[in-house]
Amino acid sequence: MRIGILGTGVVGKTLGTKLAKLGHDVRMGSRAAGGESAKEWARITGTKSSEGTFADAAAHGEIVFNCTSGMASLEALRAAGAQNLQGKVLIDVSNPLDFSKGMPPTHSVCNTDSLGEQIQRAYPTAKVVKALNTVTAAVMVEPSLIPGVHTIFVCGNDAKAKAVVIDLLKTGFGWKEVMDLGDITGARAQEMYLSLWLRLFTKLKTPNVNIHVVF
Amino acid sequence: MRIGILGTGVVGKTLGTKLAKLGHDVRMGSRAAGGESAKEWARITGTKSSEGTFADAAAHGEIVFNCTSGMASLEALRAAGAQNLQGKVLIDVSNPLDFSKGMPPTHSVCNTDSLGEQIQRAYPTAKVVKALNTVTAAVMVEPSLIPGVHTIFVCGNDAKAKAVVIDLLKTGFGWKEVMDLGDITGARAQEMYLSLWLRLFTKLKTPNVNIHVVF
Repeated sequence: MRIGILGTGVVGKTLGTKLAKLGHDVRMGSRAAGGESAKEWARITGTKSSEGTFADAAAHGEIVFNCTSGMASLEALRAAGAQNLQGKVLIDVSNPLDFSKGMPPTHSVCNTDSLGEQIQRAYPTAKVVKALNTVTAAVMVEPSLIPGVHTIFVCGNDAKAKAVVIDLLKTGFGWKEVMDLGDITGARAQEMYLSLWLRLFTKLKTPNVNIHVVF
Repeated sequence: MRIGILGTGVVGKTLGTKLAKLGHDVRMGSRAAGGESAKEWARITGTKSSEGTFADAAAHGEIVFNCTSGMASLEALRAAGAQNLQGKVLIDVSNPLDFSKGMPPTHSVCNTDSLGEQIQRAYPTAKVVKALNTVTAAVMVEPSLIPGVHTIFVCGNDAKAKAVVIDLLKTGFGWKEVMDLGDITGARAQEMYLSLWLRLFTKLKTPNVNIHVVF
């Protein structure tokens, strides 16, 4: 499948590398195309891998991942262009965390709204699925880095788009337990959980931490 | 031990009943003492059980539980009286959830502050420990209602107070895994998690849901 990835940081590269290994045709996008790191990524990852601007990556993808930092996501998506997102599955991996006032970060949006919802409102024809934002990059694509069964969440308004994402998470990335939290307002829960994740990360001194929902 | 419980709702009664069964000397407090329901509770729970005002309950307790609804907690604690909380372990079970705008509730405080911190600031000599707010009342005192191992959180500024609470959770209530999230600012994480809990409750159609932290 043709996949566009917005953001060439650790999250974007980790997802891009895994997706390329799975045989997908991945294009990573950044604000300023042609950066050395992104070019290097495309060179070593595979012959089908490429890099370009946010708009290049979004235009390329049948599925688009938003892996930009949460505070920059709406601007990055504007640069990607509404026409390049129209009707597409847009997987929002980002977290609206504001690091500008030091650690721990605070949320730039939460409680009565979420970044996932903001993105869905800004791009109403895109099929936004919030996913993977509750674990560190390495665990996103290799859940077995954490022992035992643990849970990853998805939410979004389009059932078919969620089915595509859930299949990718299960058969592509190896997630055993994917929990659908309903419509895109579930992004509030997935994003606000980060407050607990950050606390666990600090306490346990490893980013390889997740939760298993039990009932 | 003498225990005061502020709030005679489901949470207060569930904790009060369990603590009385464990042999503690429990006094439940409400705004208007002498309500039929609280008197009935005291009558059937045991000879050492009693009820009264918020101030009566707080004065009685060596340990005090805040089981009032989050939006009413600061007012209830004012009625309890600073002199009755001074130097005591104050276990804050409440969640600052605002149901006034319909379901799902939103947080009346979150992100850069929390109810746990507000209470600690208002009563600086009290040893506030945030605990048990992440599960439904029945599970608080009977964690085996949910199968397998799952996690309950505590946080607070006073290590000895947390040790008292952790011992009560483990040996009194049967919690196998209690995780200390550090100082009282951890209350932000414990309270913001409720957004996910509410979503899980809605999806899974049972309040008997919790998370197990894995790493």
